[in-house]
Amino acid sequence: MAAKLKPNPSDHLLILIVVFLIAIDSFVPSTAEFSSSKWYLISTEHWVGPERLGPIFVYCGNEGDIAWFAANTGFVWEIAPQFGAMVLFPEHRYYGESMPFGSGEEAYKNASTLSYLTAEQALADFAVLITELKRNFSAEGCPVVLFGGSYGGMLASWMRLKYPHIAIGALASSAPILQFEDIVPVETFYDLTSNGFKRESISCFNTIKQSWDVIISEGQKNDGLLQLTKTFGFCRTLNNTDDLINWLDSAYSYLAMVNYPYPSEFLMPLPGHPIREVCRKIDSMAGDNILEKIFEGISVYYNYTGKVDCFELDDDPHGMDGWNWQACTEMVMPMSSSQDSSMFPTFDFDLSSYKEECLREFNVEPRPRWITTEFGGHDIKATLQKFGSNIIFSNGLLDPWSGGSVLQNISESIVALVTKEGAHHIDLRASTDEDPEWLVEQRTTEIKLIKSWINDYYRQKRAVFEI
Amino acid sequence: MAAKLKPNPSDHLLILIVVFLIAIDSFVPSTAEFSSSKWYLISTEHWVGPERLGPIFVYCGNEGDIAWFAANTGFVWEIAPQFGAMVLFPEHRYYGESMPFGSGEEAYKNASTLSYLTAEQALADFAVLITELKRNFSAEGCPVVLFGGSYGGMLASWMRLKYPHIAIGALASSAPILQFEDIVPVETFYDLTSNGFKRESISCFNTIKQSWDVIISEGQKNDGLLQLTKTFGFCRTLNNTDDLINWLDSAYSYLAMVNYPYPSEFLMPLPGHPIREVCRKIDSMAGDNILEKIFEGISVYYNYTGKVDCFELDDDPHGMDGWNWQACTEMVMPMSSSQDSSMFPTFDFDLSSYKEECLREFNVEPRPRWITTEFGGHDIKATLQKFGSNIIFSNGLLDPWSGGSVLQNISESIVALVTKEGAHHIDLRASTDEDPEWLVEQRTTEIKLIKSWINDYYRQKRAVFEI
Repeated sequence: MAAKLKPNPSDHLLILIVVFLIAIDSFVPSTAEFSSSKWYLISTEHWVGPERLGPIFVYCGNEGDIAWFAANTGFVWEIAPQFGAMVLFPEHRYYGESMPFGSGEEAYKNASTLSYLTAEQALADFAVLITELKRNFSAEGCPVVLFGGSYGGMLASWMRLKYPHIAIGALASSAPILQFEDIVPVETFYDLTSNGFKRESISCFNTIKQSWDVIISEGQKNDGLLQLTKTFGFCRTLNNTDDLINWLDSAYSYLAMVNYPYPSEFLMPLPGHPIREVCRKIDSMAGDNILEKIFEGISVYYNYTGKVDCFELDDDPHGMDGWNWQACTEMVMPMSSSQDSSMFPTFDFDLSSYKEECLREFNVEPRPRWITTEFGGHDIKATLQKFGSNIIFSNGLLDPWSGGSVLQNISESIVALVTKEGAHHIDLRASTDEDPEWLVEQRTTEIKLIKSWINDYYRQKRAVFEI
Repeated sequence: MAAKLKPNPSDHLLILIVVFLIAIDSFVPSTAEFSSSKWYLISTEHWVGPERLGPIFVYCGNEGDIAWFAANTGFVWEIAPQFGAMVLFPEHRYYGESMPFGSGEEAYKNASTLSYLTAEQALADFAVLITELKRNFSAEGCPVVLFGGSYGGMLASWMRLKYPHIAIGALASSAPILQFEDIVPVETFYDLTSNGFKRESISCFNTIKQSWDVIISEGQKNDGLLQLTKTFGFCRTLNNTDDLINWLDSAYSYLAMVNYPYPSEFLMPLPGHPIREVCRKIDSMAGDNILEKIFEGISVYYNYTGKVDCFELDDDPHGMDGWNWQACTEMVMPMSSSQDSSMFPTFDFDLSSYKEECLREFNVEPRPRWITTEFGGHDIKATLQKFGSNIIFSNGLLDPWSGGSVLQNISESIVALVTKEGAHHIDLRASTDEDPEWLVEQRTTEIKLIKSWINDYYRQKRAVFEI
């Protein structure tokens, strides 16, 4: 390694700019933009400041508008006061307002402009943002704790592992970091979703399982698509039955994810125990018309308020479109639907056709082994037993993503918190009067663990924890 | 997070390709290329194979031809047989034969093509290569141990920290991972180099320290540059005294790095204790002509064989040109030369002029805080005390890079091995009959530690270490 830079004078002028650096740097706000930045939400309301080494709570923004996640992550806001913590919600690049290349249209133009939409870039963005922000607040000594749910939880755990100098710990809720390659069975996701319905009602499960054939044979009739369009109340005539099947499939999966014990509005306005409600509708409808039963049931998800006149197939109210690109590059999560235990159409994951779809859609080839190469996953217990610390993997077993998550303690300080009746990152939601006892206990444990990380850090800094 | 990919059919064809993915993928050899790859050297001669979980020793290629590093890292080759280990030397992209975009000319064309020359990309390349190679050898269960010297040592330690699922430990020799921002005093490098001369001879130190003014005033005379060209025997007439000063500065720094106790040919063919020899020449020459003394001394470095007819200013025999780009982007290592303790021209590191040089040379702006953001460095002891494991930071205090390295144990298994008389990664060199006792002991300790990592791994795998 040469001792120092000694550039040789060069004759030729280089006019091209380095897009990579700009793409990262564009995320870094200047001091002046602090209060009005589009790219993150920040609250210093309860922060005890840099002198007292007030903690900084960072939610790792995932695939959607950051305001949406902030509104659905009440836990972080609720506990900030007792920790005297700053709260920071940085948005993931390419989602919400955080568009490189000047606009969403430019950012999503083609595979070249989209190539900076990766988990690694998101982590680097968070790292740069936190570092700059701490400098600007003279808060270099303040401990950072990461939070995240779902893909955001994956980012939180990966960030703690890759950037231990930036964050002292992470609460990774419903983070399926093992949902890659063959680490968990490919049937897991749809089996768990199906179980969520089966546990409510076998007949509900069976009705749904039978409905796919009915839809397909209905679609093959003369005017069948028109008839299906009417039955399900779409605004536009269906082009094929696949669109309808995907629309239903999505709803069932999302219902399993948000199967909370109280009313919520995370993905859609829903009653408490929404699967129970769906099955009640399906089961209680008289007669043999399976499709009418299905419509009654699915309306709980798509039209609980009763205000929807007709349904659009490709709504994206939370700006989650970029996930398809991520799924076509890094986030290849193989999923099959088994004939026996799943209520979904039987489906075997096939990498070749997956690749074809991605080439057609984005002109990009997926890299199914990249995530485990970059972040690990195989033999995670052996790898992390003597490596890393301070991560909570929290999961509710009703959540279909729990199957691809860490459900066992890895070491003394990389721990799994599992609740039998929990759904998708329910622990991160704001507390309610209807919270069951197990949820209150889970959050108490999380607070205790986070406190212990911070106290360890303070002990190391020889500061006293007096907030 | 949506359950699975459901691409919408798209009308427009995207014709642009994703350079980022290609740049990484281009490094990954197909199975057919295994034996004849240009990008890495491999030996399975002593490997006991996958059934016996034979270890894989990987040297993290740094800024030069990989064959050159392989030839100067005899330690790895020598210990491979007793470990039954495979040996792998992957080359760093943009060095040696490992050129993206088809050729060195294309790769180095401008800031855009050069933008993939980063430490993170190099680590990702190694990760992909090792993972693919293990698959091809059915060696997924075999433990990987990393080695590296200088920048290669930085890569080895960072790789262990960032990719614990890929490597179980790292020997990072002379790895100045703390030579960034203000983590160590900016004068360290030149002070240590100067001390290497001072300890041999005060008069030698003083002659060198006085020589800079003499060179500058000589250069200001009529025909001064021509006279300096003659005195120092350059092939072409000097354009300015700066070039001469840099030429001498480099040689002194490199001499301090390779100040080995026996003859070597790492950077140049040199006698044992080369600084002693340089100073002997400088001190023993009669008369007052400082420049003639300097020429005699420096000839030990540039012409020890006596075969050089005239000197070229910008030789790059080991293909290290890319380092200037790295120094202009990520690898900003601030260095000053103090008036009192350094024998070099007084020089204060100035980020603005550093930036200007980089903009002129590469049209790129350096990011002086990026490395510590990405890899850490500040408060390294606190950060890594309960995070990470199995890293040896070995350093010799004669090496000027030791000042920016880890010289104290961080935890039970992240340890510092420091030798008073060692120079730049001397422990990685092949053993010789002239090896001093401390060097033999240092290598014995290293072997013992590496064995303990592998044994721990085997114990975990419930395999028996019977090689």
